[in-house]
This record gives sequence, structure tokens and C-alpha cells, in this order.
Amino acid sequence: MGKTIGVIIDFLTDDYRRQIDAAAAKHGWKTRYFPDSRSAVGNADDCEILYGHCSQKVIASAKSLRWFCCCWAGVDRFCKDELYQNPDCLLSNSSGAYGLTISEHLIMTSLMLLRRQLEYSELIRTGGWDTLPGNIHSLYGCRITVLGAGDIGTQFARRAKAFLPARIVGVRRSAKPGDPAFDEMRTNDELDAVLPETDLLVMALPNTPDTAGILSRERMALLPKGAYVVNVGRGAAVDQDALIDLLNSGRLGGAALDVVVPEPLPAEHPLRGAKNLLLTPHVAGNMTLPYTQQKSIDMFLEDLENYLAGKPLRHAVDRKRGY
Amino acid sequence: MGKTIGVIIDFLTDDYRRQIDAAAAKHGWKTRYFPDSRSAVGNADDCEILYGHCSQKVIASAKSLRWFCCCWAGVDRFCKDELYQNPDCLLSNSSGAYGLTISEHLIMTSLMLLRRQLEYSELIRTGGWDTLPGNIHSLYGCRITVLGAGDIGTQFARRAKAFLPARIVGVRRSAKPGDPAFDEMRTNDELDAVLPETDLLVMALPNTPDTAGILSRERMALLPKGAYVVNVGRGAAVDQDALIDLLNSGRLGGAALDVVVPEPLPAEHPLRGAKNLLLTPHVAGNMTLPYTQQKSIDMFLEDLENYLAGKPLRHAVDRKRGY
Repeated sequence: MGKTIGVIIDFLTDDYRRQIDAAAAKHGWKTRYFPDSRSAVGNADDCEILYGHCSQKVIASAKSLRWFCCCWAGVDRFCKDELYQNPDCLLSNSSGAYGLTISEHLIMTSLMLLRRQLEYSELIRTGGWDTLPGNIHSLYGCRITVLGAGDIGTQFARRAKAFLPARIVGVRRSAKPGDPAFDEMRTNDELDAVLPETDLLVMALPNTPDTAGILSRERMALLPKGAYVVNVGRGAAVDQDALIDLLNSGRLGGAALDVVVPEPLPAEHPLRGAKNLLLTPHVAGNMTLPYTQQKSIDMFLEDLENYLAGKPLRHAVDRKRGY
Repeated sequence: MGKTIGVIIDFLTDDYRRQIDAAAAKHGWKTRYFPDSRSAVGNADDCEILYGHCSQKVIASAKSLRWFCCCWAGVDRFCKDELYQNPDCLLSNSSGAYGLTISEHLIMTSLMLLRRQLEYSELIRTGGWDTLPGNIHSLYGCRITVLGAGDIGTQFARRAKAFLPARIVGVRRSAKPGDPAFDEMRTNDELDAVLPETDLLVMALPNTPDTAGILSRERMALLPKGAYVVNVGRGAAVDQDALIDLLNSGRLGGAALDVVVPEPLPAEHPLRGAKNLLLTPHVAGNMTLPYTQQKSIDMFLEDLENYLAGKPLRHAVDRKRGY
């Protein structure tokens, strides 16, 4: 009797199912599809591999688990060793599946801030038809800083470059050379020197101890008056109280947050009333985009071949490092 | 005594004033600044040149007028010969000043439609925090048709190309080769053949007898189910009643109109209630963007040199053709 792959993905279609079944059958493996994590808890003991949107409970209960391929890019919840019954259990993520959709979200929200689309939407919603007093702004000539220059930050920089910004600076932990779309690469240590020359700060960082609170009140104050902040990494990277203060006082020109603390954001949370703040409900890396779905499946099937051949996983996560 | 340039621009700053004064003084000309068109009617008889946001009444009343340099790109209102006291009066426009800002509007609104940002904004506004059921879409792999491949359409195509669409087809009146950003150029006669292969139709046409009603009910029906329409040219190009019907029935996925009939759009107009319709109050070519302001002034000053040297105006409009 062959071994079993358990699948829990909320975007399952007949086509995706056929792709996964075919790859498994080629090696004599079986597949089991669970409609959601709840139904899988305690019922996945036969699964050596799990792929998808699994809860921590599913992972903790899976007795035979040797590899968990996570559909998300952010896997901080799955990096604790004690979660796994088998201490050598492999973990991989879908980092690389989201750059395309998140970069489109970043361009959209950046332009919405620069062009005052929040105010225009409200004006139209309330029956008006006017040009607002004061200026709008443009990506042309804009000084952009991308904090977190991985797949998401790089895909954003490539698209932003077509809008002829003055400069795109990438900032990351290590001093590796960046994609040619970046005019310059700096390290996190140099962030304080970069912020005063930043009109638009784009944050696409994983959630690690290093990145929590990285955009502190002090750092926000280093940005020029009227600067914009966009965050698609993890909410914990931003001091939300400081952000609310600086938006409401007009010190910052606007912000767009796709990630916040807590999620879901309560209806009465003060972030919802902040001036010029564009909120989206953690959908920048939208798994309802067919491209992203297929890309995640492709990455899983690629690593399935690696796993079955005894090779290292291409999308493996170092549980100690957190990404 | 030198001759006089009259200026009526609603974005006048000390810096712009200095630039215009310096260029005039170099040739011994004077400048007169009017706060608005109303104050200029009947008071601009000494102006051989007028530059800016002039009303038809100002133009009709200006006895010495020999050149009107219009701040707008669309000058259909100024193409009637009988408007001018001097039948040889020259007309120029600021076509070329708007491509940058309108192309950013086009990318922003296209992404807002594809990513269902109208629905997400409403969800956040009403206190929610969820992922909407169903798919979003992407510019990646999108089949884009740009109707009107002038400065605006071309600037849009250059930016859209960075998002890796499947194909960008430009459509225009003449069969001239287009910018390399277009994968293919077609003529207006071939529009009916292009529409069935169009996921996103971007319209950036001048208002001429040829373009009025060009997106008729019949042509809209040629678009694939779920297609998107964005218009930044003139409202008269679109059959608005048909658009409302096709949006409300779900036949079209969404539309973004920056130009409508009439403007200003009344608060109770049926367009305001149409499903998945993003309205903006004719601000795509936003004169509150400093780049656009400076570009318009640069174009005027360039042609001022041409005018004073007896050379043809670079931005001249053919009043018979309408652009």
C-alpha cells in the first residue's frame, strides 16, 4: 500500500486535483483531500506529507508527518520544533508565489495614496464631483525605499521602475547585490540614513524577531514630512500607535496597511479612523488569483519530486532562521 | 510699449510667474495675470497672446488675440472659427503634458478593477475584515487593448508592459507604426475584430465626430464576459446606458470612468449606482500634479520662442481636424 499526501487547500478545483493526483500516482502515492483543517485534526495520521493551509493543530496531530509544504509565504507559526511529533520533519513554504500579486497591490496602493484616491472615492460616494484643493503626487521622480528586498520587494521594484521614479533603494539584512531594478542596495544597519531621503517607504519583511517593531516611532520621525508608508509584510513591523498619531497630525501623507495587529481588525479599532489610511484585509497576497494558486501547486509538485528523489527541498524553510 | 501676454492658470505660483515673466521680458513683452476667466472677459483687449484655462467668452472677447495656448489637451470647444475675432488666430494645446499623470491613473484604476478594490474598500468602510469569495485578476497575462494610441495611450502601454500582460494592442485612426510598448497596432476599422480578444479596454481618445459613441452597445457586446473598460478621453465616446446595463447584469466585470456626460455628474445620476463602476471626477489628467503644471508651462514657453521667431508652433492644433 502506497504512502499518502494530505491536501488542505481552500482554492481546490478539479484541475488542481488532477495535477496533484497525477504527480502522486506516478510514484505510487495516494492523496487525501480535507475540506478544512478542522476535519483533518486527528485524521491525518497516515499522511507522510501535508500540503496547504494547515492549522498548527493539524501539524501537531499528524503522527507520520515528515514534510509539511505550507501554502503561505510567512511560516513563523510553524517554526517551533515542539510543534512536530517527528523532530526531523521538513518545512517548506510558498515564498515566490506571491511576488506577482503583492507587487500589483503595492503599485495600486502607492498610486492610490499619491493620487489621493481615498479622498476622491469619498467625494464620489457622497455625491460630489470636484477637483480637491492642493496637489497630488506621482511615482515619477519619487524616492522609493523598499525594506525587504526579496521576491516581493524585487517584483515591486521592477514594476515601479517603469514609472520613472527618481531612485529605488533596496534595504535588507545582508549586503548581497540586488536585482538591477534597484538603483542601490543598503543593509538594515543603514536604514536610519535612508529614511530621511524616502518619499515612499514600502515594507515587505518576514515576521522575525529582527523585524518586529522595525518601523518605530523614532524611525517614522526620520521620514520627510508628507512621506507615505505601505506595509505588506507583517503588522508587527510597524508601531501602529505612532503611525496613527503621525497620520492624524498630517506629518505623514498617508499609509496603506494590508497587515495589522490584531487580525481580523475589530470594527472599532483606532486604525480604522486614522487619516489617509488605506486598509485592506490581508489580501495583497491574494490566494484567489489563479496565477498564485497555480504557482503554489507548481512549487509543491517541484519539491515533491525532490522529496521522493531524496534531494533537498528547493523551497525549504530553516526553522531556526524563520524563513 | 511692448506687447502683452495674458495668463489665466489656476495653478499659478511665484515660481511659475517668474518663469513666464523672464521669458516675456527677454523679448520686451509684458505679462498680465488674471485670477480667473470671468475677470478677463472684456479686459484682455491688449493681449496678443493668451495662455491657460481660458473660457470661450474670454477668447471671443479678446480683440487683439493672435495665439491662444490652451492648458488643456482637449480643445474641441476652441475649434470653431467663429469664436475668434481674428480668423487667423493660432491655437495650441498642452497635449503631451498629461500622458504621465493619466497613465498612472490608468494603471491605478485598472488594478483597482482587477483586484476588486471597490468591494474591498466598501468591506473595510463597513467594519469588515474578510477575503471576498471568488477570484481576483491580474495584469499578468491580461489581453489589453488601448483605443487611442497617442501620448496617453503610449505612456500607459510603457508602464503596463512592466506587469507582463499577455499582449498590448494599440488601436488608432491611422496605420502608423506605434511605440515598441505595443505588441501590435491596428486601425479603428479593425476594432470589432480586436474587442472579442480584449480583457481590459483602455480608451484615451480625443472628442471628435469620429469618436463620439465609438463604444456603442453593439461593440460592448463584443467584449468577453467579465471584461473591463476604462475611459479617460471624453465621456461621449461611451454609450453610458448600455454600460450601466452590462455592468449591472455582470456581463462586464467592471469599469472606470473619469469622463462622463454630463459633467459635473448629478448626485442622483444612474451611473453612480452602477455595479463595479469606479467614478473619478475628471481628475485623471490632474493639473494639481506639479509635473503636469511645469510641463504645460515648458510647452508654452517653447512655443513662445517659436511664435516670436515667426516659426510654426510645435503644439499647434489644426482647428478643422480638432486635435
